[in-house]
Amino acid sequence: MFSAAILGCAGYTGQETLDRVLAHPGLEPVALGSDSLAGRPASALDPRLDGDLPAFVPNEEAAAAGADVVFLCLDHAAAAALTPPAGAVVVDLSAAHRLRDPAAARVWYGAASGAWSYGLPELWPPEGRLIANPGCYATAALLALGPLADGIDGAVIDAKSGVSGAGRALKESSHAGAVLENLAPYAVGRHRHAPEIAQQLGFDVCFVPHLLPVRRGLLATCYVRFADDAREALEEAYTSSRVVRVLPDGVAPELGRVQGTDTAELAVYADGATGTTIVVCAIDNLGKGAAGQAVQNANVALGLDETAGLRVSGVLV
Amino acid sequence: MFSAAILGCAGYTGQETLDRVLAHPGLEPVALGSDSLAGRPASALDPRLDGDLPAFVPNEEAAAAGADVVFLCLDHAAAAALTPPAGAVVVDLSAAHRLRDPAAARVWYGAASGAWSYGLPELWPPEGRLIANPGCYATAALLALGPLADGIDGAVIDAKSGVSGAGRALKESSHAGAVLENLAPYAVGRHRHAPEIAQQLGFDVCFVPHLLPVRRGLLATCYVRFADDAREALEEAYTSSRVVRVLPDGVAPELGRVQGTDTAELAVYADGATGTTIVVCAIDNLGKGAAGQAVQNANVALGLDETAGLRVSGVLV
Amino acid sequence: MFSAAILGCAGYTGQETLDRVLAHPGLEPVALGSDSLAGRPASALDPRLDGDLPAFVPNEEAAAAGADVVFLCLDHAAAAALTPPAGAVVVDLSAAHRLRDPAAARVWYGAASGAWSYGLPELWPPEGRLIANPGCYATAALLALGPLADGIDGAVIDAKSGVSGAGRALKESSHAGAVLENLAPYAVGRHRHAPEIAQQLGFDVCFVPHLLPVRRGLLATCYVRFADDAREALEEAYTSSRVVRVLPDGVAPELGRVQGTDTAELAVYADGATGTTIVVCAIDNLGKGAAGQAVQNANVALGLDETAGLRVSGVLV
Amino acid sequence: MFSAAILGCAGYTGQETLDRVLAHPGLEPVALGSDSLAGRPASALDPRLDGDLPAFVPNEEAAAAGADVVFLCLDHAAAAALTPPAGAVVVDLSAAHRLRDPAAARVWYGAASGAWSYGLPELWPPEGRLIANPGCYATAALLALGPLADGIDGAVIDAKSGVSGAGRALKESSHAGAVLENLAPYAVGRHRHAPEIAQQLGFDVCFVPHLLPVRRGLLATCYVRFADDAREALEEAYTSSRVVRVLPDGVAPELGRVQGTDTAELAVYADGATGTTIVVCAIDNLGKGAAGQAVQNANVALGLDETAGLRVSGVLV
Repeated sequence: MFSAAILGCAGYTGQETLDRVLAHPGLEPVALGSDSLAGRPASALDPRLDGDLPAFVPNEEAAAAGADVVFLCLDHAAAAALTPPAGAVVVDLSAAHRLRDPAAARVWYGAASGAWSYGLPELWPPEGRLIANPGCYATAALLALGPLADGIDGAVIDAKSGVSGAGRALKESSHAGAVLENLAPYAVGRHRHAPEIAQQLGFDVCFVPHLLPVRRGLLATCYVRFADDAREALEEAYTSSRVVRVLPDGVAPELGRVQGTDTAELAVYADGATGTTIVVCAIDNLGKGAAGQAVQNANVALGLDETAGLRVSGVLV
Repeated sequence: MFSAAILGCAGYTGQETLDRVLAHPGLEPVALGSDSLAGRPASALDPRLDGDLPAFVPNEEAAAAGADVVFLCLDHAAAAALTPPAGAVVVDLSAAHRLRDPAAARVWYGAASGAWSYGLPELWPPEGRLIANPGCYATAALLALGPLADGIDGAVIDAKSGVSGAGRALKESSHAGAVLENLAPYAVGRHRHAPEIAQQLGFDVCFVPHLLPVRRGLLATCYVRFADDAREALEEAYTSSRVVRVLPDGVAPELGRVQGTDTAELAVYADGATGTTIVVCAIDNLGKGAAGQAVQNANVALGLDETAGLRVSGVLV
Repeated sequence: MFSAAILGCAGYTGQETLDRVLAHPGLEPVALGSDSLAGRPASALDPRLDGDLPAFVPNEEAAAAGADVVFLCLDHAAAAALTPPAGAVVVDLSAAHRLRDPAAARVWYGAASGAWSYGLPELWPPEGRLIANPGCYATAALLALGPLADGIDGAVIDAKSGVSGAGRALKESSHAGAVLENLAPYAVGRHRHAPEIAQQLGFDVCFVPHLLPVRRGLLATCYVRFADDAREALEEAYTSSRVVRVLPDGVAPELGRVQGTDTAELAVYADGATGTTIVVCAIDNLGKGAAGQAVQNANVALGLDETAGLRVSGVLV
Repeated sequence: MFSAAILGCAGYTGQETLDRVLAHPGLEPVALGSDSLAGRPASALDPRLDGDLPAFVPNEEAAAAGADVVFLCLDHAAAAALTPPAGAVVVDLSAAHRLRDPAAARVWYGAASGAWSYGLPELWPPEGRLIANPGCYATAALLALGPLADGIDGAVIDAKSGVSGAGRALKESSHAGAVLENLAPYAVGRHRHAPEIAQQLGFDVCFVPHLLPVRRGLLATCYVRFADDAREALEEAYTSSRVVRVLPDGVAPELGRVQGTDTAELAVYADGATGTTIVVCAIDNLGKGAAGQAVQNANVALGLDETAGLRVSGVLV
């Protein structure tokens, strides 16, 4: 049994990570960090949380609790400022350590990845004990395009995400009055996940995210030059995965089947008229796009079963 | 042509009031007040707003612009603190001047209605030039129960409102992540619209509001002791109204038909087994529940056609 | 290990029951009944369903498969027409066998409960091997009012349900264009769950259901004459339950915390001004309101751990 | 005053067309066709519809009523089978007469456009009295790309539509349980609006539609090879339009501002890294995407003010 500390429990990714740790047969939560909830019991965050859990402590205290694995569910600046506790596996769910190029990192986040390893287990398993967890948009796009990257040199990625992807912080664009019955693109041509995707694929991509009127779930529709063997490449890449499923012909990915899970769905289409291959990926932005992948990365680093604690089975209508 | 000033244009009720004034054949907007947008053009609020509109000015300046009618789309404290401009018709969309009883008013809002007249045109037409515009929940409950009040002495009012009823201000309960696919009661037994409804009906009511995952629209389901002639009383009360429609037997009120309008729909049911009369009222919380009724009240006070500028016809699927 | 047959797998309650059976440590699915999917593999219903599952067979064949427990996820007429397989525990999720009074049953469903036992485990544990599973609205209302029933003789029940409560069948009222951004009451004063609630409580109730624009989840707001010890009665009734949680003061039930689970949340409020006690209950209509409760009833009848296979822990944001 | 007949009033596009005709100063509805509602009063469709309207008649009878303008709000087969009444302006909202190439038309619809003119007033004003009204997806894509077509030879069009775009007919994919909190692509690489767009632009396009969990509204995100003067071309094309608005830099199109209107919003972006121009268009699929454009086309053909009866002003929050 490994001990786990979670920093930033009061945010969406923190709460979801905590929930997976609670369901994990090999992890025990020993420190729950939250600067806003410090001193209060776990039930202050959610009445479903059990009275046996430790009370919240300041993030700094949680970091110093000596846990075997530490999950950083903080904003970029706070994650960049934190000195990783020595000896622990540290999974950073923020974007602070995702970019290898110091210049690019400075532009987008103010921190460079340095000794951190980018961990997307199916394609780039984490190495070492400092792990940068991919962004939600990047996860979906990379699952779709990673196995095809050798044969292509550009992509259009049209992505749509539920509002929880923007976090629990209050802002105008997350106000329900701005989200309900609405849809809009945002950060067109300047979203920070674009350089992250480009870094992993090796070429620039045209990336446009849209905000959906749904609570959770993310779908990326990716367009690339026609690739004859796209389906084979995807099926081979994920053949042994319990997380990523390449759907049979005629079944389209949809949010409804991945919400609340840590799985991903992929489908591939050929548009003969324009010579385009279309790959669509659906994930839960808080699952495979954040907390689920963070626990998966931790499992790999700790030598545990890769899907321990993950939600990879079960069917919700 | 009367001149109109609107204070608090940047909120939901302010923007909706402005929109009705723009469509009004007898009103001309001469001052657009907004402390947050002062100095900026109308298009800063919404790109649909025309370049011919005056720029925003501070609310205080708008109040002093000498308009014939002034709409206060402010929070309670700001509306209570404002000295009504002399000579103008003033319609206060906040709750500051709704309660006549000074003690009750102090408890709920810190201001008493004094010289202000409570204006719900179909039941209590405004008198004088200072008009307190009813709350959205109160409007729906009073349209349902006002015509029956003589024969009853109590009511259960179970109300459900879209999120715009809580305003454009950022708060946790209006975050889309808390609203989407959700429903919850709030302020149970302590909502400030309860004393307002009681004041107008003459007896206490049990009032429970719920927050719906919709942008706009409000439905109140009201339960009272069986009244034999409830349908007749309602039909008689609204027989000549272009705003309030008593639906035929077998047709239930629904948000979808009142959203974006200034109309109200009513239906009445008898539950023989328990001796209960059920009256259901649907309105748009920003229409008949706020801006539409404010303009309707102004029309009455100015001697204009009561529905001028209102959205009382048209069908949206 | 007990064997399980599920009839009517292609509907919402059938698919949800199947999913709980798959997660159940003591049940093994041996026959999947569906007249519409007969002959096709499990993945024809949902690509998440595993290739190791048996293919669909006609419902009649599934009923005759000799399973230890049979779940009837059929419409009322089909469930009423079926001869329960001898020796098996049979849980009927339809309404066919809920009403004891033959006259009432004839009016509402065309079948009487006869030898069937009404099973709501926390209040009325099932007896014998033929179990009528409560309706979703009835479950929420009875969890709220059952423990108080001795001291009251009437109730107003204002209920709101997500669209999956109306099933997967195509009808105008379930068309997304009629549901999205909408809310309306339906079947006012004539919903078949009213006599079911009355049968269990011992008095008539005024029951009004509303259709919510959410996929799943149900909230019942119940109004009764003031009861001094309502909270105590509720806490005592559910003190040892892992399924039903009485929330602490100041926390309101909400759909967001019960969706996808088999739990229930209760809160109790006193409205001093009108002498009313308000009890609010939230459940997932497909969980505690259908499939979760069906498996719970089966567990009781088979002598298994009452919550085996149920979703009673875990937190989704 | 011109007389108008509407065939297929009971569908979404029929009801919306009727509503615009009712608001039109120069059109009078003389025949309301609906095979399913024949013989019933207008209020049978919607209680908001006035008692002064004529009752519904069979579509064939409405076609023969001698109206000056006839709106065909029918499915493709019915529209193709109908002989256009002699002398009348006929606007076909179905797809039956949109494709000029007989072979393509046969593949997609079974009818060829023949004497019909494709009418998208801002780009291709209708000629003659037989007018094929564009599809909703095609309208959004063409408004975005039409003014740029000379300089490009291909496009990726990623489109997202509310559920009313699929009509009022009952089908699994329009069931609220399949739509709420969901998103999925459909008809990838084989949607019938693709050849319609290609016909008007002069080159093939890669078109992927997605079904949104909203009632109405459509957004098309279009990707083309970088065009230096894209903004200028769009602004010039729509400079005098009261229907199409090119938004200022920094404002993104959104459904919330076009729903319930007959307007369109456009924005243009440059993605320097990949040499891509992105044009985004938002419309209401039932407004500019159907009924609004149909009335606009009729106005042009009848020599009326182009926006008479249209919803081109007004602001809803």
